[in-house]
Amino acid sequence: MTEPFPLNLDLGERSYTILVGENLIEDAARHVSPLLHQPRVIIVTDDNVAPIWLSALTESLGQAGIESQSIILPVGEQTKNFHHLDRLTDEILNLGIERKTTLLALGGGVVGDITGFAAAITLRGIDFIQVPTSLLAQVDSSVGGKTGINTAYGKNLVGAFYQPRLVLADISALRTLPRRQLLAGYAEIVKYGLIDDPDFFAWCEHNAAALLDGEPEALSFAVHKSCQAKARIVSADERESGQRALLNLGHTFAHALEAQTGYGDKLLHGEAVSIGMVMAFELSNRLNFCDQGQVGRVRAHFESVGLKTELDGLADNSWSVGKLIAHMGKDKKVKGGSIAFILARGIGKSFVTRDVQMQDVEFVLQRALDRF
Amino acid sequence: MTEPFPLNLDLGERSYTILVGENLIEDAARHVSPLLHQPRVIIVTDDNVAPIWLSALTESLGQAGIESQSIILPVGEQTKNFHHLDRLTDEILNLGIERKTTLLALGGGVVGDITGFAAAITLRGIDFIQVPTSLLAQVDSSVGGKTGINTAYGKNLVGAFYQPRLVLADISALRTLPRRQLLAGYAEIVKYGLIDDPDFFAWCEHNAAALLDGEPEALSFAVHKSCQAKARIVSADERESGQRALLNLGHTFAHALEAQTGYGDKLLHGEAVSIGMVMAFELSNRLNFCDQGQVGRVRAHFESVGLKTELDGLADNSWSVGKLIAHMGKDKKVKGGSIAFILARGIGKSFVTRDVQMQDVEFVLQRALDRF
Repeated sequence: MTEPFPLNLDLGERSYTILVGENLIEDAARHVSPLLHQPRVIIVTDDNVAPIWLSALTESLGQAGIESQSIILPVGEQTKNFHHLDRLTDEILNLGIERKTTLLALGGGVVGDITGFAAAITLRGIDFIQVPTSLLAQVDSSVGGKTGINTAYGKNLVGAFYQPRLVLADISALRTLPRRQLLAGYAEIVKYGLIDDPDFFAWCEHNAAALLDGEPEALSFAVHKSCQAKARIVSADERESGQRALLNLGHTFAHALEAQTGYGDKLLHGEAVSIGMVMAFELSNRLNFCDQGQVGRVRAHFESVGLKTELDGLADNSWSVGKLIAHMGKDKKVKGGSIAFILARGIGKSFVTRDVQMQDVEFVLQRALDRF
Repeated sequence: MTEPFPLNLDLGERSYTILVGENLIEDAARHVSPLLHQPRVIIVTDDNVAPIWLSALTESLGQAGIESQSIILPVGEQTKNFHHLDRLTDEILNLGIERKTTLLALGGGVVGDITGFAAAITLRGIDFIQVPTSLLAQVDSSVGGKTGINTAYGKNLVGAFYQPRLVLADISALRTLPRRQLLAGYAEIVKYGLIDDPDFFAWCEHNAAALLDGEPEALSFAVHKSCQAKARIVSADERESGQRALLNLGHTFAHALEAQTGYGDKLLHGEAVSIGMVMAFELSNRLNFCDQGQVGRVRAHFESVGLKTELDGLADNSWSVGKLIAHMGKDKKVKGGSIAFILARGIGKSFVTRDVQMQDVEFVLQRALDRF
């Protein structure tokens, strides 16, 4: 085992380090302890992660003299709502915390998003640390400071930009991840290649099998590369006024599909993003930004690993283009009534535009619906 | 009527203007419109304020071509909770807003606090404008960016530091305010004299009667002076790491009294602060920081206008020093187990300290309980 290689997310006084490596949870105290204002953390985790990783974490902290208490949330996206946020902040306050207390999010994207948001608003802001245990959380949601919950009107419509003090991305935690979850996270890894790194996309084409088989070298490289890409984009545009929107490649379509399926187990976020990225390339092709060969290469790669690129098994007769478009209109990225789309001039050549006619979006969606 | 005199709260890119003057609501569009990113605002107000001021505001906006929609909250401190925050953000989202939409809080402290917090978290932050209609909100809660809600564990324990884009403190709105509300707000005005401005305290002693009779000159001067004092302290310490705590003079005691009375109509915040400031001076006297004459002068001034300084009519046999101290321990100002107190070396000579023995606090509370 080599020392984890630290990445820096440069945001002035809100800067922090992202560590990618093996056995970081077992060795957490060494990394966490220099950042604490008092020898105490409150760990927030969920029913799935707690039995596997909680004791390793608390032991590490305990041996370093750091007191810890834990709060265990129910598993799943439906935990990311006002009801559970209310309960979570109540439980945190019930533990008699102070402004110097640090929260530690141990889990996937749901745990990270709601814990980060709870940290942002409890006592008007206390420190928090991300220990993402899913691939999706390691390469995407734990880095960049977007926290929040879902509402009846859409996903992540309530939240805060609130940066963690440290991210510990422990590759070892991925060993216990079901393959479907690994695949969903992998879709976001490929995204970084598609945005602006054609070499990394080619690396993905060659190394996907090893990565999905859990080879530590492949996982470490891909997680590191993804965090680096995300850190670079977030440093340049923390609050998403411009280039940060590139990270939403495929996400406008994905959000519509997730809203239509009810944000449940039927379609995981990464799965929706996989379909959404293919749709974004199809839209780019329809608008003559890229050729059909590029669309085919993206689609072929996702299909080769077993990620969805079509709506079969998903859509039914109740779906319609109109419903999907309506979901898009409730996204945060709407401005002056127009929707931001991320298009591509090819693999690794993505760009943000609001200059898309809805009839072209409708065409892409209708064709996908016709195919299922 | 003279032009309102603008005050600036200097917080870098989060700087904003506070306007104090007459008829600002009727003339709102002129001040609001240069700040809008789109000609649309969502007004949040309450059942008390809406019938009196909502139409004047929407008319002004409408004449300037600014579309407005309104959300009317139930009156009272119990509106500042998770349930109403959830409903409020839902109603805001239901109106189909975008990141460019601006919220406008028209009302007292409750409306301002929950609306500001909703603005902070909706779509991870949209602009908001404060139009405080109570004296308390004009001289305290609308300025400085503290937003939030109450929880079962205490007041304002969940929230955000989130600055408005503009504060319109319309003195004319105070004409319809019940005298009890005016008095409660007045306690916070006196606070600025007690903190660091003995001349202003003397002004209060001479002009309280005129101010409480609603004389516009006295009100304008006092509101302006208070906002100026608060702006100066907040500019120096936005997130309360040091001197901003001076604004909490009397508030540690006040929070304990409010918690014990259930944050209701039995004891308004300003009334609790009046008693709390006398207790802070009594504690300062017990610790030999100031003489009994100073305590007497503070008490005499509050009594002369009809503000409470004692627990009679408030406490009953169920109250105890232990319960009050326990409430204090749940305040945000706790650090490393010790509670911050604001003491005074005399009128206008306040300072922050954590070096207070709880037995002295208990002594002051016990004496107050023995007297009722």
